[in-house]
Formats: sequence, structure tokens, C-alpha cells
Amino acid sequence: MSFFQSTEHIIEITKNLPISSTKHKAEARDRQAQLTKPPGSLGKLEDLAVWLAGWQGTSKPQISNGQCLVFAGNHGVVAQGISPFPAEVTHQMVLNFEAGGAAINQLCREAGLRLTVKALDLDKPTRDMSQTTAMDVDEVLAAMNIGAETLDDSCDYLVVGEMGIGNTTTAAALSMARFGGDAGRWVGPGTGLDDDGVAHKAKIVEKIFTLHGMKNTDPVSLLAACGGRELAAIAGAVLAARMRSIPVMLDGFISSAAAAALTAGDKLDVLDHCEISHMSAEPGHLRLAVALRKQPVVDLGMRLGEGSGAATATLLVRAAIATHNGMATFAEAGVSTA
Amino acid sequence: MSFFQSTEHIIEITKNLPISSTKHKAEARDRQAQLTKPPGSLGKLEDLAVWLAGWQGTSKPQISNGQCLVFAGNHGVVAQGISPFPAEVTHQMVLNFEAGGAAINQLCREAGLRLTVKALDLDKPTRDMSQTTAMDVDEVLAAMNIGAETLDDSCDYLVVGEMGIGNTTTAAALSMARFGGDAGRWVGPGTGLDDDGVAHKAKIVEKIFTLHGMKNTDPVSLLAACGGRELAAIAGAVLAARMRSIPVMLDGFISSAAAAALTAGDKLDVLDHCEISHMSAEPGHLRLAVALRKQPVVDLGMRLGEGSGAATATLLVRAAIATHNGMATFAEAGVSTA
Repeated sequence: MSFFQSTEHIIEITKNLPISSTKHKAEARDRQAQLTKPPGSLGKLEDLAVWLAGWQGTSKPQISNGQCLVFAGNHGVVAQGISPFPAEVTHQMVLNFEAGGAAINQLCREAGLRLTVKALDLDKPTRDMSQTTAMDVDEVLAAMNIGAETLDDSCDYLVVGEMGIGNTTTAAALSMARFGGDAGRWVGPGTGLDDDGVAHKAKIVEKIFTLHGMKNTDPVSLLAACGGRELAAIAGAVLAARMRSIPVMLDGFISSAAAAALTAGDKLDVLDHCEISHMSAEPGHLRLAVALRKQPVVDLGMRLGEGSGAATATLLVRAAIATHNGMATFAEAGVSTA
Repeated sequence: MSFFQSTEHIIEITKNLPISSTKHKAEARDRQAQLTKPPGSLGKLEDLAVWLAGWQGTSKPQISNGQCLVFAGNHGVVAQGISPFPAEVTHQMVLNFEAGGAAINQLCREAGLRLTVKALDLDKPTRDMSQTTAMDVDEVLAAMNIGAETLDDSCDYLVVGEMGIGNTTTAAALSMARFGGDAGRWVGPGTGLDDDGVAHKAKIVEKIFTLHGMKNTDPVSLLAACGGRELAAIAGAVLAARMRSIPVMLDGFISSAAAAALTAGDKLDVLDHCEISHMSAEPGHLRLAVALRKQPVVDLGMRLGEGSGAATATLLVRAAIATHNGMATFAEAGVSTA
């Protein structure tokens, strides 16, 4: 039986989600206050440790089975000339992931994450969303189920990423359908459009919005109108992770937009288990982070996708865990307090 | 024979420093342009790889013998009540470093750095710089020599950090003596002063400046007037690293101020081999980074010292190296270009 059975099933799931453990967050904050350092002086590293503690339900969190899921999909909207790269690059990059040659391969090795790459019907792009809906409801559910099923039984920390030529346009269209606003402020250069290219992309996103309008009803309708298979798979994985209280590190603009689809119906709290890893150089990401009320962990000027920013930020999560669990307390070390 | 023999010797050294290899930087940039990603899409990770390539003199940089030097010192100016922690904490924290219980121990393990801790005459604090000069020239040279000598022969990447109750006051006084400006904008809460405490600290720093004035002549005079032993040791290590073209990752406010001492005489280029790892939450650090014309790699709201920010940023340097050296090129992977 499928993980997600219908639009109504998903709506029902989002009404009954586990929340972060207040008890374990408090215990982790208490431990931080006792460690041999001025209170709060490890900044975001302390916040990351407490975040993990709450979702993992332990005062000493760990990443023992961290997983990075990268989903790939193709987009009919590339027919509108919105990417400088040809669509076959999606498949070529999947081969590169499988051969170990991409950025995400190196970063997962550094961060101790198991990488799983899943290509979704690359020979069957979504429909051109500037002309019609991108997917049928069944296609959205199928992709969401693949996302959910790709999550390991043992996973205790999840990174999500994607590959898909044209998918900054999809992410911009989806963000606009969810949150409204001007098309020109959701689009950016993506893999490298010049100013004319960005202006053209804004016109296409505006056209998509004119066709579909706001889609702030439910995740499935939103993804069907202007999503992509890899975005739906990310949404499925992120929701499945939440059902098991697994903390999720989102990557950049596309991953965040995919996760944002789950908030359709004004349910921002569906993403309470997620952190945004980094502020992408793609300008729509800042706007999306604000809409989701999340502050990205770092800003490294990255805009590659593949989960690269989230895998990089995972190095900082590991630093957070190492200090949280490994440091001596004032009492243990015999250090005087203020 | 000592590494640094006199003020004049140090001035002479700073006139004849090796520079970054233009050839290897260009080769590294060229490699980045061929890797399977949109050009520039790894942001600061690309910049870090090129920085290392230039100083290590290779198109494929590595950290094989990364070292973290933490120097500890005590400060006579604590008599003015500028820290909430008692001075004996400096020694207690050195014992904590040696027992492996501090933040820097955990972070060095994560980052693959060999930690060396050096306590400098903790039972002999510097003199109270609000009353007289902090050190004699011989004391400055001795501390700088200890810094230089602590650097391993095999070191290929250096992180510097410090421990010293009262040393945000020293760093503020030193920064003001080097760059001028208002005392109130060089000081901050340090390990946890309240607003009244910060206002008092500003008055003390103002008094120090009134006593000593600008000291933008040479590193030794500046450190003698208002330095600390651990700051002089950092300055010695940073200068010794430059003489061997070893890239240096500075920590926060105090490490940056110690390195800034080397720029006395308006020689900002003495720190060309240094990156500032993180933007400390201590407010004077932003001002100091601007004065040194360096953009910190990350901003994680950290303010612990010990080299903790620099060790954390080293995780990102390792990510930079892993992607730079490990990724396939477009040609190797058979991926189409834009």
C-alpha cells in the first residue's frame, strides 16, 4: 500500500503531526548552560544541538544514520527557454552522482551522510506549466511516495537535495502560487542566465501565475499545478520524516520551495522539524526563507543545489553535536563560574 | 637564537614577505571553472580553495598537517573590574584544554587539527595597561618567539586561538591604539558583562587610550603598550606562518586584534595569508574586520574564543578542498556545458 493515498489523506496527516520534545529541548538547554564556556557563546551551534535534541527526543543527540536524498526530475517548462543548460544535463548529472564525481558526493563523504540518488521518470518531463498543469494528482502522489519510501528505516537525520534543469523556474512558480507577490522577485539567474534571460524567466513565471492563480489549498493541488517530480519527492520525504520526528536539513531555493508546498493551507508548522541550511545566492530564496519564518544556518554564496548547502551545513551540525556531547561541565572541570 | 630578535628585526621581516602564488591561484580558478557545476555556484567554498592553492603553491591544496595553537595569558587590567569571571579561570581552562573537556578539543577533533596549548606565564599577568605599559619590549619579543616556535615544522594550515580572562578589553584597547575611533564602539559584553559593565569597560579603554595614544608605528611598540602575552604569541605565530607561506585561519575578536598588531605602520598586506573565520558576536569584531578589509567566512553568533570559530570554519575549508580536488570536470563526466 502506498504511503500517501490521496490529497485528503495528506491533509489528514498534516493535522496530526508529532511535535518536538519540550522536555528534551529543556534538558539540552540546561546542559548547554553547564558546559565550560560563557552562556550562549557557541551561538548557532547551541541552537542546532537543542533543535536536534527536541526532534530526536534525547538530551544528547547524534547523527548515526544520516541520509542525503537527492531527487532528479525534468521540466516541460524548459520549452520556454528558461535555462542556459540543455535538459539532458539532468540525466548526465545523475550519472555523475552515480560515478561519485559531483559536489554532493564529496560533501556527503565529508559530512558522513549516506547518499541516495533517485531519478524520477527523466524521460517523461512534467508538462509545460505555462500551458497546463504540470502533473496529475496521481503523478504527484506517486512522486511523494517515492520520496517517502526512499527514506531509510534507520534514518535519524535527513538532508534533501535535487537536480533538474529548469527547476529554479518551477520553484519560483510554486513559491508565487503559495505566497503571492511579484514574479520578478521570485526569479533569479539560476545556473547562469544573463539579465535578459532573468527578465524572460519572470515573464514566464508571471504567465504561469496568470494561468493557475494562488494555490494555497493543499500540497497536492499546489504541486500538481506548478511542481516538479523531484520537488514532490522532496515534499514526500520531508513529510515522512516529520511523521517519524526526524530532523531535516533543507538545501536551497528548490528544496525550500518543495518543502513550502507542504505548508499549503497556511500550515507553516508542518516544517517545524526543518532548518534551512544556507541562504542561496538565488535571490528568491531570501524571500522564501522570510515567508517560511526560518533563518538559514549559513550564507556561503552557494547556489548549486544537489543538497550541497545542506550537506555543508551538516558539518556545522556535527560540530554542534561534538561540543554539546563532548565538553566538560564547569563542575566536572573544576572551573569557576561568573 | 631567537626567531624574532628586536623591533627592528620584525620591521625588516615585514618588508620582505613571500606573497601568494598567482600561478597556482589561476590554475585553481581554472579547475573550478571546469568542475561539474555552474560557474561560481560553490560560492565561498571556491574562494577558500583558491586561497589555499595560492599560499600552499599547488593547484590541489590539502590540509595534511593542520595545527591549532591556543595561547593563554593573564591581564593586569582585570584589576579594573572589566570581566565577570575571576582571573584564575584562565589557568582552570588551560587544565580543561589539557584534559580534553573544552569546546576547542571537540572542534579540533572534528576538523582534524592537532591542538597545541601554550600557557604564557599565567602567574605573571601583564601590567595594568590603564596605569602603565602592559609589557616591556623583551616580554613582547619573548611571547612572539614562543608563538613562532610552537608552529610545527610540518604545519601546512594554521588556526590560532586564545584564552585569557580580561582579553576582550586588551583587544579593544589594542584595536583603538592601532585604528583610533571611539572606545564605546570597540568594547562589548565579552564573557557576559551587563550594560553597566560594558559602559565601565569603555571608560577603562578610553583611559588606556588617553595614557598611550595611537601606536601605529610597529607591532612591538603596540603590543608593549596595550597587548597581552597570548596576543603577542598569536602575532608571532601568524608572522612565522607568513614567512613560510602557511595559510592562517584567524578566530574572533582577540585573535584578529593580535594579528592586527602586525599591521602597525599601515601594513595591512602583512595579513594577506589570513582569513577571518567567523564574525564574532563581540561587536568590536565587525569594526576590526572592516579595518582589516576582510570578510569573515561565516557568522554563527559565536563568541567563545579558544580558536573555536576558526576550528569550526576549518570544516568548511575541508568541504572546499574535498569539492575542489574530488569533483569530476565536465569533460571527465561527459556533462554538457551551458
